[in-house]
Amino acid sequence: MNKLKVFSLAFVILVSLSRVANAEAVLLASDDFVGITFWLIAMGLLAATAFFFIERSSVPSAWKTSVTVAGLITGIAFINYMYMRGVWVQTGDTPTVYRYVDWLITVPLQMIEFYLILVAAGLAISSKIFWKLLIGTLIMLLGGYAGEIGWVTPGLGFVVGMAGGIYIIFEIFRGESSIIATKNESIKSAFGALRLIVVVGWSIYPIGYIFGLLTPMIGL
Amino acid sequence: MNKLKVFSLAFVILVSLSRVANAEAVLLASDDFVGITFWLIAMGLLAATAFFFIERSSVPSAWKTSVTVAGLITGIAFINYMYMRGVWVQTGDTPTVYRYVDWLITVPLQMIEFYLILVAAGLAISSKIFWKLLIGTLIMLLGGYAGEIGWVTPGLGFVVGMAGGIYIIFEIFRGESSIIATKNESIKSAFGALRLIVVVGWSIYPIGYIFGLLTPMIGL
Amino acid sequence: MNKLKVFSLAFVILVSLSRVANAEAVLLASDDFVGITFWLIAMGLLAATAFFFIERSSVPSAWKTSVTVAGLITGIAFINYMYMRGVWVQTGDTPTVYRYVDWLITVPLQMIEFYLILVAAGLAISSKIFWKLLIGTLIMLLGGYAGEIGWVTPGLGFVVGMAGGIYIIFEIFRGESSIIATKNESIKSAFGALRLIVVVGWSIYPIGYIFGLLTPMIGL
Amino acid sequence: MNKLKVFSLAFVILVSLSRVANAEAVLLASDDFVGITFWLIAMGLLAATAFFFIERSSVPSAWKTSVTVAGLITGIAFINYMYMRGVWVQTGDTPTVYRYVDWLITVPLQMIEFYLILVAAGLAISSKIFWKLLIGTLIMLLGGYAGEIGWVTPGLGFVVGMAGGIYIIFEIFRGESSIIATKNESIKSAFGALRLIVVVGWSIYPIGYIFGLLTPMIGL
Amino acid sequence: MNKLKVFSLAFVILVSLSRVANAEAVLLASDDFVGITFWLIAMGLLAATAFFFIERSSVPSAWKTSVTVAGLITGIAFINYMYMRGVWVQTGDTPTVYRYVDWLITVPLQMIEFYLILVAAGLAISSKIFWKLLIGTLIMLLGGYAGEIGWVTPGLGFVVGMAGGIYIIFEIFRGESSIIATKNESIKSAFGALRLIVVVGWSIYPIGYIFGLLTPMIGL
Repeated sequence: MNKLKVFSLAFVILVSLSRVANAEAVLLASDDFVGITFWLIAMGLLAATAFFFIERSSVPSAWKTSVTVAGLITGIAFINYMYMRGVWVQTGDTPTVYRYVDWLITVPLQMIEFYLILVAAGLAISSKIFWKLLIGTLIMLLGGYAGEIGWVTPGLGFVVGMAGGIYIIFEIFRGESSIIATKNESIKSAFGALRLIVVVGWSIYPIGYIFGLLTPMIGL
Repeated sequence: MNKLKVFSLAFVILVSLSRVANAEAVLLASDDFVGITFWLIAMGLLAATAFFFIERSSVPSAWKTSVTVAGLITGIAFINYMYMRGVWVQTGDTPTVYRYVDWLITVPLQMIEFYLILVAAGLAISSKIFWKLLIGTLIMLLGGYAGEIGWVTPGLGFVVGMAGGIYIIFEIFRGESSIIATKNESIKSAFGALRLIVVVGWSIYPIGYIFGLLTPMIGL
Repeated sequence: MNKLKVFSLAFVILVSLSRVANAEAVLLASDDFVGITFWLIAMGLLAATAFFFIERSSVPSAWKTSVTVAGLITGIAFINYMYMRGVWVQTGDTPTVYRYVDWLITVPLQMIEFYLILVAAGLAISSKIFWKLLIGTLIMLLGGYAGEIGWVTPGLGFVVGMAGGIYIIFEIFRGESSIIATKNESIKSAFGALRLIVVVGWSIYPIGYIFGLLTPMIGL
Repeated sequence: MNKLKVFSLAFVILVSLSRVANAEAVLLASDDFVGITFWLIAMGLLAATAFFFIERSSVPSAWKTSVTVAGLITGIAFINYMYMRGVWVQTGDTPTVYRYVDWLITVPLQMIEFYLILVAAGLAISSKIFWKLLIGTLIMLLGGYAGEIGWVTPGLGFVVGMAGGIYIIFEIFRGESSIIATKNESIKSAFGALRLIVVVGWSIYPIGYIFGLLTPMIGL
Repeated sequence: MNKLKVFSLAFVILVSLSRVANAEAVLLASDDFVGITFWLIAMGLLAATAFFFIERSSVPSAWKTSVTVAGLITGIAFINYMYMRGVWVQTGDTPTVYRYVDWLITVPLQMIEFYLILVAAGLAISSKIFWKLLIGTLIMLLGGYAGEIGWVTPGLGFVVGMAGGIYIIFEIFRGESSIIATKNESIKSAFGALRLIVVVGWSIYPIGYIFGLLTPMIGL
């Protein structure tokens, strides 16, 4: 199980970084550092993708699908980061559309990851959990997107998006899946780690949103 | 068989999406969303391709060829979507030719997929079914294409194309292959799922065709 | 052996198509369709390459090398088709040079394929057969090429090229390898299928040559 | 264990080369040779990456993760060298930013490599060693970077960077990990080899720094 | 061992071709054929690389590393040929620098190949042989390069380069490794084949050098 810890660790670091980076891209003004951040994360994501796809052959077979999905998440994120970086270098703009396209693919895959970890541990789990997490995610992302591109006011988009995000956090901390996860010691810690990424990593998203979109509105 | 369900699910979602997307590309006027749809689907298809090719090593050996073919379908579709997206970004036009090239490769592969699922389940099946499905597909696609590029009138192209499509739907719902598929419980549900994609996904195709080509002709 | 039949089938279809396509590229005047044909075949060759390289792990070990070589043939043909298509799109010209480069690599590999199928079946076979097929191939290709680029008159190039082609056909229908192939029932049919591709597929080559190069000379 | 020696050898040579090359890129004035060096090292790194990823399947399973990480190090370095070479060819400038991005990913991975070799050998080892090496690395790199881009004076950057570097060298020669490594004969030599790369390879870094940044300041 | 013979054969042909091609690139004046040669060899090298990397899984495990290294040689040569071809098409010049970069990576790998074949056969062999072959190679290449770019007179470069080449030929025909190789029948023939490539393939190199650099000097 040692390998699984390394794997979880790498996963936690990379996904967190990926969230932070998006936020920084909004917060930071200095050109250079946004670009470097994109490049550093892209390289890290590529390394993680290669790591997951190659090491997959060495993990116990119940965990193989989780590792494949982890590789898909980092791989898709890698491609989108390369595009974001390209747009950044050419236009000096953080491309909202690529960020959300990235999230629309990778965030649901993270929810599948939660689900697969419970399944891999042999825990009885209803597929309802998967659908709850997926729908919460879509509300969070579509709410935020509608606010960012001006379909609804930034304030309304923020409220809708946050509702989805808070629902997911409730589900994984107090909901059905969190109760199931406590039945198994080793899963409890893996589940706890993933939970931490979501809270820490995603808490940066609303902060970036507030500073980038809401603050300018109230004249700050 | 749990993995096979996930696999079927992913397959159903992705292929349906791919059909819907083509229709939307015709129906929607807002630039942005056609482009986003192309990009989202392309990324999803890439993830699905990687998933099928990597997870192939973990499915029971009778199913391996089905999974390979699933990966080929999503892989070829991915490449064609990248080209379609490129053409869209440069010209603001949905490229008819790439859509049909995509279909001419992937739709026959879907028919092979129907056939392989029956074979994988160890059901005695004549290769005549494969040829029936293939010929129906070609009539459907070539009819539609002839109408779209103006070789025949859109109305005639539509009638010919529909004839091919209806023949396939008849075959998979009431024909020889559907009778064989009922002999085995687990196959029955996989077969039913694939059947559903064909009907739901493809029903969007004639709708897009009607709105895009036939409606303008009668002055709507 | 079911998988092997599918494999042979795919191989027959693709290689035949690839021969036909070259001929069509010469015969057809309508821009569009030459381009579509290049693209369709390129996609089909790519799918076939992925299929062979992936399914290789599932065939009996005596057949593995044959499948690898089949993948090399379709893979090299794929790359050359992409180049031919690029040249076609830019210049509206079918590039003679890429067609022959493609053939100079893939046709000898097809001859190796004949040889490997006999070896895989455990038939005693002298390596002389391999050299006979290889030399016949080179004469056929170099003769045709010399005629097409104007080193010798098209008529002379045709005669020399045909001599090489007829020699190969004689060898595989009446020569040593055809006699060996009859010793084993399952090989007989695989060998017969490959023989058919060569005769049908290659018969299109001289027809294209006659219409493209010889007919204009005699004023037709 | 013969294969492991070859592997270590290749690793030592390539990583050393990679360090030397960076230094040379600073020291040498003749255009040509900087470019050739970039290209040579890039090709060598690509070959090493392919070697590690392919040969991974043949090493004992305890060593597989080490080999994967070795491949990630050379693979990421390969990509960054291709970019550095591109920048060099276009601008005649060695791009500081890509060099440090390369190091920020590959140097921590080298520290993980030290750790994994001890783990693979079955030695009890606290994860504290990993964190010590990682933090030392970050201090070394960020100190140097701050000096090179002018955030702090080159002299201060040099002192801070050196502090981190010397701490790592102390740790691997006299610290906890070096003591553990002596418990096992075969590890002792592998560990010794890696240690040698760090000292020889990295000693070139401060020399290049002194000649490129500090010497001009004191009027040499 | 049948597969090994095919492998050796393919290796011999390709490496020889690769040497010949370089020479032709110097000797031939007709644009077209230099380009075709680059393209043909590049495709052949790509096919060989795929062949080695894929078939590696089917050879006995003692030979796996040899096959990997063979794939690295052809793979690196493939990439350099693509660049050479690009430079040729754009400038009509054979790029000296890429030829030598190619050789600086692939020729030492060929020397490693000699060494690995002896090791794979289980023959006791000192690593001194490896170093002798490597140093001879470097002298040969650096001597030739110095002459070609005008660091030393072409005549001096030729003498130094030849000294290195002759030393290697002496070593593999009469030296320690050739004596060891005679101890095992099957190795003797593999070793003999590789020896033949070196002598035939490399003899073309000095001939090209003489015609391209030395002859013009003495007014021929």
